[in-house]
Amino acid sequence: MKLGVCYYPEQWPEALWADDARRMAELGIRHVRIGEFAWSRIEPSPGELQWDWLDRAVQTLARAGLEVVMGTPTATPPKWLVDRHPGMLAVDAQGRERRFGSRRHYDFSSDAYLEEARRIVTLQAQRYGRHPAVTAWQTDNEYGCHDTVLSGSDQAVRRFRLWLRERYGTVARLNEAWGNVFWSQAYRSFDEIDAPMLTVTESNPAHRFDFRRFASDEVLRFNRMQVEILREHAPGRPVSHNFMLFFTEFDHHKVAADLDFVGWDSYPLGALEMFWFGDEEKRRWLRTGHPDFAAFHHDLYRGMSRLPFWVMEQQPGPVNWAQWNPSPKDGMVRLWTWEAFAHGAGVVSYFRWRQAPFAQEQMHAGLNTPDNRLDTGGIEAAQVADELGRVPVVPSERSPVALVFDYEARWALEAQPQGADFNALRLAYEWYGALRALALDVDIVSAQAPLEGYALVVVPTLPHLPDGFVARLRDSGARVVLGPRCGSKVETLSIADGLPPGDLRTLMPIRVRRVESLRPGVTSPVVLGEHRGECIRWREHVELGADSVGEAQFADEFGGPAVVRAGNVRYLAGWFDAPTLTEVMQRAAIDAGLEPYALPVGVRIRQRGDLIFLFNYGDEPATLPTEPVDWLIGNDTVPAQGVCVARLRSA
Amino acid sequence: MKLGVCYYPEQWPEALWADDARRMAELGIRHVRIGEFAWSRIEPSPGELQWDWLDRAVQTLARAGLEVVMGTPTATPPKWLVDRHPGMLAVDAQGRERRFGSRRHYDFSSDAYLEEARRIVTLQAQRYGRHPAVTAWQTDNEYGCHDTVLSGSDQAVRRFRLWLRERYGTVARLNEAWGNVFWSQAYRSFDEIDAPMLTVTESNPAHRFDFRRFASDEVLRFNRMQVEILREHAPGRPVSHNFMLFFTEFDHHKVAADLDFVGWDSYPLGALEMFWFGDEEKRRWLRTGHPDFAAFHHDLYRGMSRLPFWVMEQQPGPVNWAQWNPSPKDGMVRLWTWEAFAHGAGVVSYFRWRQAPFAQEQMHAGLNTPDNRLDTGGIEAAQVADELGRVPVVPSERSPVALVFDYEARWALEAQPQGADFNALRLAYEWYGALRALALDVDIVSAQAPLEGYALVVVPTLPHLPDGFVARLRDSGARVVLGPRCGSKVETLSIADGLPPGDLRTLMPIRVRRVESLRPGVTSPVVLGEHRGECIRWREHVELGADSVGEAQFADEFGGPAVVRAGNVRYLAGWFDAPTLTEVMQRAAIDAGLEPYALPVGVRIRQRGDLIFLFNYGDEPATLPTEPVDWLIGNDTVPAQGVCVARLRSA
Amino acid sequence: MKLGVCYYPEQWPEALWADDARRMAELGIRHVRIGEFAWSRIEPSPGELQWDWLDRAVQTLARAGLEVVMGTPTATPPKWLVDRHPGMLAVDAQGRERRFGSRRHYDFSSDAYLEEARRIVTLQAQRYGRHPAVTAWQTDNEYGCHDTVLSGSDQAVRRFRLWLRERYGTVARLNEAWGNVFWSQAYRSFDEIDAPMLTVTESNPAHRFDFRRFASDEVLRFNRMQVEILREHAPGRPVSHNFMLFFTEFDHHKVAADLDFVGWDSYPLGALEMFWFGDEEKRRWLRTGHPDFAAFHHDLYRGMSRLPFWVMEQQPGPVNWAQWNPSPKDGMVRLWTWEAFAHGAGVVSYFRWRQAPFAQEQMHAGLNTPDNRLDTGGIEAAQVADELGRVPVVPSERSPVALVFDYEARWALEAQPQGADFNALRLAYEWYGALRALALDVDIVSAQAPLEGYALVVVPTLPHLPDGFVARLRDSGARVVLGPRCGSKVETLSIADGLPPGDLRTLMPIRVRRVESLRPGVTSPVVLGEHRGECIRWREHVELGADSVGEAQFADEFGGPAVVRAGNVRYLAGWFDAPTLTEVMQRAAIDAGLEPYALPVGVRIRQRGDLIFLFNYGDEPATLPTEPVDWLIGNDTVPAQGVCVARLRSA
Repeated sequence: MKLGVCYYPEQWPEALWADDARRMAELGIRHVRIGEFAWSRIEPSPGELQWDWLDRAVQTLARAGLEVVMGTPTATPPKWLVDRHPGMLAVDAQGRERRFGSRRHYDFSSDAYLEEARRIVTLQAQRYGRHPAVTAWQTDNEYGCHDTVLSGSDQAVRRFRLWLRERYGTVARLNEAWGNVFWSQAYRSFDEIDAPMLTVTESNPAHRFDFRRFASDEVLRFNRMQVEILREHAPGRPVSHNFMLFFTEFDHHKVAADLDFVGWDSYPLGALEMFWFGDEEKRRWLRTGHPDFAAFHHDLYRGMSRLPFWVMEQQPGPVNWAQWNPSPKDGMVRLWTWEAFAHGAGVVSYFRWRQAPFAQEQMHAGLNTPDNRLDTGGIEAAQVADELGRVPVVPSERSPVALVFDYEARWALEAQPQGADFNALRLAYEWYGALRALALDVDIVSAQAPLEGYALVVVPTLPHLPDGFVARLRDSGARVVLGPRCGSKVETLSIADGLPPGDLRTLMPIRVRRVESLRPGVTSPVVLGEHRGECIRWREHVELGADSVGEAQFADEFGGPAVVRAGNVRYLAGWFDAPTLTEVMQRAAIDAGLEPYALPVGVRIRQRGDLIFLFNYGDEPATLPTEPVDWLIGNDTVPAQGVCVARLRSA
Repeated sequence: MKLGVCYYPEQWPEALWADDARRMAELGIRHVRIGEFAWSRIEPSPGELQWDWLDRAVQTLARAGLEVVMGTPTATPPKWLVDRHPGMLAVDAQGRERRFGSRRHYDFSSDAYLEEARRIVTLQAQRYGRHPAVTAWQTDNEYGCHDTVLSGSDQAVRRFRLWLRERYGTVARLNEAWGNVFWSQAYRSFDEIDAPMLTVTESNPAHRFDFRRFASDEVLRFNRMQVEILREHAPGRPVSHNFMLFFTEFDHHKVAADLDFVGWDSYPLGALEMFWFGDEEKRRWLRTGHPDFAAFHHDLYRGMSRLPFWVMEQQPGPVNWAQWNPSPKDGMVRLWTWEAFAHGAGVVSYFRWRQAPFAQEQMHAGLNTPDNRLDTGGIEAAQVADELGRVPVVPSERSPVALVFDYEARWALEAQPQGADFNALRLAYEWYGALRALALDVDIVSAQAPLEGYALVVVPTLPHLPDGFVARLRDSGARVVLGPRCGSKVETLSIADGLPPGDLRTLMPIRVRRVESLRPGVTSPVVLGEHRGECIRWREHVELGADSVGEAQFADEFGGPAVVRAGNVRYLAGWFDAPTLTEVMQRAAIDAGLEPYALPVGVRIRQRGDLIFLFNYGDEPATLPTEPVDWLIGNDTVPAQGVCVARLRSA
Repeated sequence: MKLGVCYYPEQWPEALWADDARRMAELGIRHVRIGEFAWSRIEPSPGELQWDWLDRAVQTLARAGLEVVMGTPTATPPKWLVDRHPGMLAVDAQGRERRFGSRRHYDFSSDAYLEEARRIVTLQAQRYGRHPAVTAWQTDNEYGCHDTVLSGSDQAVRRFRLWLRERYGTVARLNEAWGNVFWSQAYRSFDEIDAPMLTVTESNPAHRFDFRRFASDEVLRFNRMQVEILREHAPGRPVSHNFMLFFTEFDHHKVAADLDFVGWDSYPLGALEMFWFGDEEKRRWLRTGHPDFAAFHHDLYRGMSRLPFWVMEQQPGPVNWAQWNPSPKDGMVRLWTWEAFAHGAGVVSYFRWRQAPFAQEQMHAGLNTPDNRLDTGGIEAAQVADELGRVPVVPSERSPVALVFDYEARWALEAQPQGADFNALRLAYEWYGALRALALDVDIVSAQAPLEGYALVVVPTLPHLPDGFVARLRDSGARVVLGPRCGSKVETLSIADGLPPGDLRTLMPIRVRRVESLRPGVTSPVVLGEHRGECIRWREHVELGADSVGEAQFADEFGGPAVVRAGNVRYLAGWFDAPTLTEVMQRAAIDAGLEPYALPVGVRIRQRGDLIFLFNYGDEPATLPTEPVDWLIGNDTVPAQGVCVARLRSA
């Protein structure tokens, strides 16, 4: 549980550096990330390497006792490099080349750029790999940001064909797997296959699905190239990458498998504005962010790598990149920081040390204002630094609940949504929120993860079941809640044999004989015991099989089961509103031997080892019943925007 | 009155075929459409023709007593063919080539593709033209679907220039007709003329209007080429094409004139979601479709060809292609089927026999589920098959009311809408709905159609009056209702001499001295006797001439007549809300000696010969007063989603 | 105070011309603008000049005693010219060439087109420059209309690089000024710099800001070329250009500096529909236009040139180019005309004499209908012509209030809006409206204008302070109201030293330590004495300095000053709702010794010399208290859509 900061020495007069470093250390900062956008300073002209300023910057930080995370600068190749390799630019879905003038202007499928990236990373790693102050590395920056994973360039198409050949062996097998007999889409050779872009109407969902898989693998290739260089030249230094919030264009589990620790960039207010939240929610949580936003990501990334995850960039004040950019309420920067630690973060690193007065992010707050005074975020970071001494570092333990989230599931339902607003990420987020509002701790795990040891496993949606998933689920002994469309597809997105839920039928003997997507404003009433709720967006028509019973019923013109029980397993035949989802989760948790407790609105609780953390995103203080504890910070009444920390009495 | 189905033998194991055919026949199906997307199976490589599987498929169906409608496969040329003729692709309004990967990836103006299409259709016609089981043909599939009529390709521009030369003779005449003196748009030669795309601001409406006419003629040319081949090689077999719902990009009357019978594809729920209906209407009719949707199309297509029209594709359950895809209520597939017969359909053919588990339409329901069990739609089709025996086939007679709908009118008002939401199709639909809610039967006819024999002729809008139209209207002896913008333009879209209604002034001696388009939320009150209504979207300022009187008045700041009467003719000086439109139609119908009757919401009635059909799209049973009848199905109380059929007693 | 009209002899049979001219003169028209779209008639083929028809048209008008404004035809080059210089077309932000087929199809940066324009203007000026009837000239037409200022063409990029070289001297200075160290955006030479288009994400705001400046200078160059030719060949004839409503893509102050008088095109109803007004406002003012619309432009253009401005095109009835096009209420054409004179117009010229029945603007009303009868607008113009004799022409005097509006401010906040709806033009308009509703006369002036003599100077927003602005403001002696973001940036858009308000700190010693943009629906309450109002869109967090006090406070979770006073200066730390803005302006006006008076809704008053004009956009007559006056038109009760004019008694 340490603090860090992102710093750009190249953007400030060298005369400031030493003072900056001193003040960082004084404030309680331990780690400083540098270098990740500095290529044009490192190599202003082809082959003209200028390391001296970076040497001095590292030295200055080291002298202040700070540890450096060195970023590779591959997210921002200089203009001269782009002009040398014009083919390195990606092509968007409209067929337009994506030009120089901001960042991430490269195509993951460009071999020419891969070689340039390999060259600069190698040089950088050779220079700083064994530097004692450079104790960690970051590859590139926010892979895929600004919609840069998919490219329709010639090189991308060429590599896609190779990828397909590798996957299917023969084009006949591909035709069969994609169902290309439909609409005479059969290919005679892999060389006939294009990117699924600019087609007259919808392209084959299997085509789009494989194109997404391919594009994700291209990110994997690019990152692995860098990791291998760093492993060679920077031995013993952990390697990371900073993933982006609510970003699912490539498989984070696969990329994380090549890393030592995962970083993610946490911007709760920007995310609230930019994503699916409704107007009322956007007003309600305007200056705090949504109460489940940061925790969702912490719980997603916590188990992804062997070392504890970092928040590599923490929002310290208003940002510049959302349509509207409000200020956090006082206390929120502290709250977000402690919340990250509660969920297992090793380091929380603020973006950035000082607001830059120029260029694209000039209106993005830092810990210091452009006139170099400590800003609200800096004051709150200092407060956390002070408080850290009161709280021991204990290991994060397995949570009682596992929520399965799978990147391929997201792509599958983008490729064949059937209803315009069926978003697998949002569904997972809503299920997560229902559990968290019941005071339950959650691990978000991949569909490949081992499941034994959990009391409750929930699967919001998983159209294609990976090998062994059904067995792992059954063998876990956990209570299980399955969501709509689980098991509905095979791996190339055709409908599962015998209709959904496909191979899950051994656990849940039903047949989903029909599905409906429902436009906004249309609902089907659901009756679950005393509870009256609503199904929205998605409604399935289920036939019960042996040993399955309807726990909830649809009360619309069709009727039929809305929640099915079969043994330890529940199946939700639709997308339910929050109260209904809560009702189901409460029942499942009680069955699983857990003790769900309905928290006040905006209050969240998290246990890490024997530490209990309380957070209050709401406007009113809240008092929670607790077990016997020793209060390390605050007490059982958590103020608005407040944090309380207690230790369970070992008694 | 027979049933059919669309079937894709190429998509299923041959082992299934015989059983499929047997079950079709058992269910009561008589016609099976096949072949229309099978090019890549018929010719997997250039010149490598594989007819054997299709021979066997036809044979299998024939053995079960089924008749085959053979579709030409030109809507889906294989990838190898596209790669051979890259210039055959169309170019969209943004200048982007529209690529392979779905369907309809060809340019109607490509001579190279025309030749390829001619080649494959000839080969197919030679093989199956005289096959005893192949009793009808369909050309291509859904011309124009996915916005494929207009193309900005080089070949389209080249042919557009020829078309213009043909039409105008000299460029001077074109300049005059288009008013090209405006903004220095005069051309010196036809070769200077481009497609009206990507201009800096609005292009000349006359330019756009002629480009639409040209593009429609290109569809005509493409279809005629196929029809001529089929006439030669498939003598005596009627030729059809399946038109699309609410589709007006080419002139269906002209294409239909080359066919023996018209088919259309009826998807009531998809259409409700995708078209202009408001949120409230979309909720109200979510699972039934709008009560006038199918009937509007039946009445439009009934008179277009010499043989009775078919519903070539009937929605059997949820579809996949709307933004949201709900399920029909139980009973609706039966209702839609009977409604088609009531309006004169020869055959109702369901799309499709069995839901395919793969590719683009994997979520499109069929009569059978992918696991080959009869789905709801199949069960209801079987019920209809059973019921058919109870109802005799009688000829469709002329309706008492004609509604004039003209494709050129639609294009004219797209080219110069003057108000963003003036949609000539929607206006026609609303007028039609007002008549139908008054229990009146309607023929929708072209502006070239003979009009004698109708008691009432309504013309929702017809900016350009075709030759002889005014005389035909006058000579018909019918009561007439004219809508806004009738007679407002000449054939190249300039304003009519002496202002609107132009040549209609002989029947309706007024002068439309000013028009206004009104944004949503703005209304002008209208007073029509006791009735108080509203004018929306479009309001005209009319000067009365001799022998014309205001039957309704605007009660806004300008005042003046809202409905004008002159002899047998009424003119509506605006777009009126539904109650006002109903009021006007009621008066006109009574004047015409008809007996309008206000039906309960969602209930519709249709007479075919001496048969009376009742349909109930609403939620409550409805009892209707009827003349002395014999009930063949049901009785005078039509249940929700119900169908009743009676025969008038000859007494 | 004279009337004019726009006329297109080339569009009508020559037989009509003499009668048209006679009727114009009879109606009271004195000036006729012709020629500005006639290139293809003047030069139907390359080098084939046909002046004879234009000679006769001028002669015909002259014989009727009319004066001609001759327009250069460069807004509509003929097709043959475009085909000769295909590179003359502009390229839009999506990289698409903008084609022939409407108007303004040229790139301001095309040297080839510049030469063609120079050629035709020279020939035209040589022919008519000394013609006695041609008493004024107009260059081109509506520069920049249809988004034609910015182009991403090769020639634009090439000239942009030259412009940058001129401005910065060395690329190092540019890199420094733009902050190109950020994201490795540094350039090695000017030749590496592109247009800021199609970048992967947001381009550098400094890049966009300079690109806008460059593009504005290109318009300046093109216009100046024409002006210089006209000065040479048409000595003594004033030169004008017709600017467009709410248009800010180039710097009107700079272009106006090359002109003798400014024209602008006033379309109150089209503007209401097309711009930012809310649905409720669009309904409220549907057929009058917004009460501040025309006056805002009059007050903006009045001081821009040495001779009185003209309304070069006045809406005479419905137009064709908004999404919906309603009719003006009776009386509005008269009201708009008188309002222009009240604000200092020299001439009000109606667009157009007669509605053309063909091409793009066939539905655009004129003074006469296409069947050549006088339309409502013509009748009202005749009424004004009659009334003009009753009102003496007196000079416009300086207003008591100056409102600073700066084109660069608009570009700066488009380049870095920080909140999606921070529109500097709208803010200026809202401030202007608050002043006008208080019966105050306003001069809208540039940031370079002298400010002495004003009692009150208001600056809605001015991020970058031009040289000497702070001194001019201080030395003016006026009361000052500064709006949000004043002084917040340096000239290349970096944040001002010491944070906002930068150099304004000498007048307003505060520090804006944080800003927030607020999404629609989010407000911060503001308390200003007894007044309770709301801050919307933008909220600043201000630290007070010495001698500054909070006059209003935010009553949200942060608190702090919402309005700050320091000496004669007020600073508004946010975007306020209309009532709050009115409250602040009222206080400032009283402090300035003015006598603000809250006018009834829709009523406006304007003093020109000793003339008082009353206008009523509302629905009810309004009686105003007045000083002792002699009524020239009407009396102290101004009817709905009415105009009253009085003269102050010299007593």
